[in-house]
Amino acid sequence: MNTLTRLGLGPLGQLEVRPARGDSVPTLALPPACASGGLPLMEALLQRRSQREFATAPLPEQMLGDLLWAACGVNRPAFGGRTAPRAMNYQEIDVYVALSAGLYRYEPAGHVLCLEVPRDIRSVTGNQDFAAEAALDLVFVADNSRVQLVQGEQREDYAYTTAGAMVRWRRTCICTVPGRAWRPCSALGSTVAR
Amino acid sequence: MNTLTRLGLGPLGQLEVRPARGDSVPTLALPPACASGGLPLMEALLQRRSQREFATAPLPEQMLGDLLWAACGVNRPAFGGRTAPRAMNYQEIDVYVALSAGLYRYEPAGHVLCLEVPRDIRSVTGNQDFAAEAALDLVFVADNSRVQLVQGEQREDYAYTTAGAMVRWRRTCICTVPGRAWRPCSALGSTVAR
Repeated sequence: MNTLTRLGLGPLGQLEVRPARGDSVPTLALPPACASGGLPLMEALLQRRSQREFATAPLPEQMLGDLLWAACGVNRPAFGGRTAPRAMNYQEIDVYVALSAGLYRYEPAGHVLCLEVPRDIRSVTGNQDFAAEAALDLVFVADNSRVQLVQGEQREDYAYTTAGAMVRWRRTCICTVPGRAWRPCSALGSTVAR
Repeated sequence: MNTLTRLGLGPLGQLEVRPARGDSVPTLALPPACASGGLPLMEALLQRRSQREFATAPLPEQMLGDLLWAACGVNRPAFGGRTAPRAMNYQEIDVYVALSAGLYRYEPAGHVLCLEVPRDIRSVTGNQDFAAEAALDLVFVADNSRVQLVQGEQREDYAYTTAGAMVRWRRTCICTVPGRAWRPCSALGSTVAR
């Protein structure tokens, strides 16, 4: 299904949520992140480009764990410091992972995935033609009530900025809505771990 | 001057714009970015943390150039591809550099700084106590008129997300306003090149 068709069907609520495929386990403990490898930072920036073709096979668990840790994992366990910056250390964004086996929430403290919806919702996480079949889509959900010292109108600005800082190294869907509801609203192509 | 005082003086228009110090050259050609070095990516993520103490001495030109190239430099000269992702390849954000010598606009195509305001405006680029004396502040300015296929209300969302993707590796002030006017609206602590 191409992007224009998806753009038409989306507002009509006609994009398909499918039954889960694979093992919809309630929780999935991820392997500890490989925190010592990767390209040298400047070389990684030199190679950064958008990708619009993605493998459909599930990612190996190590790669999935590394990807999520890079997005918002804990890099300083003593006080829960994260790999991505955020204004005033608000933890207002949760990262959800849409897999063929279901929608999972990433829990940074335990580096674990928690099953939220045992269905394959990838098709409704983005309008681009690859969204429904990519190995995963990341969905960033902002709970603006956690951003207490910021005026209401600026809370979404903070959420978008924080989400942007999380996505530099990966393909993702950005998604912010107050109160834990969510809607896909834009897709930002980035370098994906392959 | 501490942050609370600055927060009070800011809305009153009482933060001080100072005369330029140093060499306010009209254009400054930056050395080509060192595109092969840096920490391995995962180790850089492991070390990421916020900084709130900054040297006041001007950055060496090589470091300044590398910092700006990492924010939004050209990594694929054949078609102007950038080091940071953006939705639909809109180039809606210009990066300005507030130095003691003046406010400069970074021109990615030529990897050059262009003088815009020959005054030291660092004091008005952020509310945090270090803003006025840090070696530089980066100011991200969105021209939403460049985001043509996006509905008006979503243009700022795009701008904040794009700016977030640019700032992961550096201390900066985020700043978006339609039509090239600008105001500082939030500061996001990140790892600074030191």
